[in-house]
Amino acid sequence: MIRADLLVTGIGELATLARGPLPRRGAAQGDLGLVFDAAVAVAGGVVVAAGPEREVRRAVTLAARGVHRSIDGGCVVPGFVDAHTHLLFAGDRHGEVEAKLRGASYGDIARRGGGLFATVRATRRAAAAELVDRAVDRLRRMALAGTTTAEVKSGYALTVPGERRLLDLIPEVARQSGLRLVPTYLGAHAVPPEYDGRADAWVRTLLSEIPRIAASGRARFCDIFVEPGFFSAGPARRILTAARSAGLGLKLHADEFSASGGAELAARLGARSADHLLRAPRSSYAGLARAGTVAVLLPVTPFASLSGTASPGRELVRAGVPVALGTDLSPNSWVESMTIVLAHAVYAARLSPAEALAAATVNAACAIGAEGEAGQIRPGRSADLAIFPVRHAVEIPYRIGLPPTAVYCRGRQVTPT
Amino acid sequence: MIRADLLVTGIGELATLARGPLPRRGAAQGDLGLVFDAAVAVAGGVVVAAGPEREVRRAVTLAARGVHRSIDGGCVVPGFVDAHTHLLFAGDRHGEVEAKLRGASYGDIARRGGGLFATVRATRRAAAAELVDRAVDRLRRMALAGTTTAEVKSGYALTVPGERRLLDLIPEVARQSGLRLVPTYLGAHAVPPEYDGRADAWVRTLLSEIPRIAASGRARFCDIFVEPGFFSAGPARRILTAARSAGLGLKLHADEFSASGGAELAARLGARSADHLLRAPRSSYAGLARAGTVAVLLPVTPFASLSGTASPGRELVRAGVPVALGTDLSPNSWVESMTIVLAHAVYAARLSPAEALAAATVNAACAIGAEGEAGQIRPGRSADLAIFPVRHAVEIPYRIGLPPTAVYCRGRQVTPT
Repeated sequence: MIRADLLVTGIGELATLARGPLPRRGAAQGDLGLVFDAAVAVAGGVVVAAGPEREVRRAVTLAARGVHRSIDGGCVVPGFVDAHTHLLFAGDRHGEVEAKLRGASYGDIARRGGGLFATVRATRRAAAAELVDRAVDRLRRMALAGTTTAEVKSGYALTVPGERRLLDLIPEVARQSGLRLVPTYLGAHAVPPEYDGRADAWVRTLLSEIPRIAASGRARFCDIFVEPGFFSAGPARRILTAARSAGLGLKLHADEFSASGGAELAARLGARSADHLLRAPRSSYAGLARAGTVAVLLPVTPFASLSGTASPGRELVRAGVPVALGTDLSPNSWVESMTIVLAHAVYAARLSPAEALAAATVNAACAIGAEGEAGQIRPGRSADLAIFPVRHAVEIPYRIGLPPTAVYCRGRQVTPT
Repeated sequence: MIRADLLVTGIGELATLARGPLPRRGAAQGDLGLVFDAAVAVAGGVVVAAGPEREVRRAVTLAARGVHRSIDGGCVVPGFVDAHTHLLFAGDRHGEVEAKLRGASYGDIARRGGGLFATVRATRRAAAAELVDRAVDRLRRMALAGTTTAEVKSGYALTVPGERRLLDLIPEVARQSGLRLVPTYLGAHAVPPEYDGRADAWVRTLLSEIPRIAASGRARFCDIFVEPGFFSAGPARRILTAARSAGLGLKLHADEFSASGGAELAARLGARSADHLLRAPRSSYAGLARAGTVAVLLPVTPFASLSGTASPGRELVRAGVPVALGTDLSPNSWVESMTIVLAHAVYAARLSPAEALAAATVNAACAIGAEGEAGQIRPGRSADLAIFPVRHAVEIPYRIGLPPTAVYCRGRQVTPT
């Protein structure tokens, strides 16, 4: 008999996202691996049994101080994996909403010293404790909406020591929040204002910094914003090649505002993910599929940018590209809730509800190299569970912004009961 | 000295929505009536003082068992008023999402016996206790997102006794939830399936039922779905004229899918509100403005319908029409959160954040005849307060789906601390 310290029973529908062996990158799109009348048993923060309640009860005994929770026919899905966040920032940019309503683009606002550069100024000024407090507060609300794992990028310091400082805060933020965080180095978020547009000089700095970041273990991925006015494909290739040599995984902000070669570059380098892809040419999809690069869609961002575009979810699935989801949490598209992202994934990016759920769990875990721990409910994986008051998992994206009744990360409840 | 039983202090920004005298219908769009470093005092569920903290503290003393809550620079706005809900229904229609993704319209799905008619079948079958439990559960989540007042329509029974049964549940649902509910008779939601398209026969039934509904006090408003395939403008005029004679306020589901004369009819009859208006011709706006009819926009509905349209918020404000907001909560657009509606009001309907906040509070109260109680924070009004962890009220729509930290209805906290 396995001894469990948490036993969840009475699960009407358990979406394990664990049907069959996991493909190299991303699950079969939309296969939820459903089990009905199910139970999940957890020991030491890890799933030890998940399946039909009868079988789990036969195999597992609850430890003396163990917790038994019966959920009366509700639904359990893996805690959501938010594959793309700019979690660490100070200040806010609510004043830019009016400019957006008058038609100003992200680039327009940045060129006037606002946008990203306003956040850089605020973040540089902020004390470490303030950055940590704000990030923990955001993660608490993210957990209330079902998130248990999040990728976290640096990128709002744009100095060598400042970017290191941001990455150095992540372990403390993870500890205080109780969530799993995956750090990404985004020194190439933009050319720092001090460089006055001399991208080459900043690229040289980044090329010498990247091996140090990798050697220090501060980050698992290197990301770059490939877009006119930020970094073009040539320097991006140099930076990502250096990152790969240093042992970092590769991510790209690709083709968000214009077709700038980001998706093609991601495929050529075998990047782990290509993110945004709002303007990626259809001809680039086959390359992403062949390379196994995960398309990380951020469907709330075009909404919050009033851009009139939508994430090409349906098209990428059709082309065989594994699709994942993220909030893109930042002062430009300030959404913390993955349940809201799921609704946009369906109603704007036109994924099916099942595809959207796979994109927010197993595929998102693959997109950030967390597939060994998160995104599936199966023995050996972390006990990251989101419990919802619905009969079927596919109701979660349908019920726009529905909050879960409880969320567990590593077997510990991270939300109030 | 006034004796208060609840005193909220430390308010960085108080949005009273109470600047100056209230116009006949709807406030000056977007005037938040801000007070900084403010406090609100409540006695017996009613606001007794609201203004600069120094002044409130001079005028008010806290009763012995009174509650003092200091919110450390946060923001307080009136509890949201959800001006349009179909709260009372059984079943769900998540299975229709895939049909919508393949391009099926609301009308297509209804003509196949799905859509609204599927919900009618489930609602007729459901026991009263089940309908009450589900509604209370929805209202609990609505309150978690800041709602303290909601309009509630009948309309999913489509028989004379069935529609009465739905209206009769509303007082119990209000009691259990602790929220303020305003009942609307929507027997004219559709022609019942038994009538096999004979709209005239159902209209005759409604014409004899409406005076009874009014005399019984079951409803304060009468609403009708004006749309090809449902009710055309002629029968709608007869029904609404009968409702007006019986003393009910008038509402219309107007021009949601096609320009069907709904907005013009609303203006001609001086209706309290015209709702949806996605396809209302621009030429109809001036009439609405002259009549003082409130435009109730439901910006999540076109999103959830994949309709490719957006609520004409900016255009209606420009034309001088008072604009209000609602969720349109139903199995077709299942959203419960007014904070999500606020985000869509800005990023899709292009209201400014301040206009959106006015639309979700004082204007929404006007749209449902609750302006004497709800929608403003001022002495004599109900103590309906939503407390948010931001510095400025205009950050609430900007921060997509941000949950409030606490919500009070009639001075009683309706959400967990």
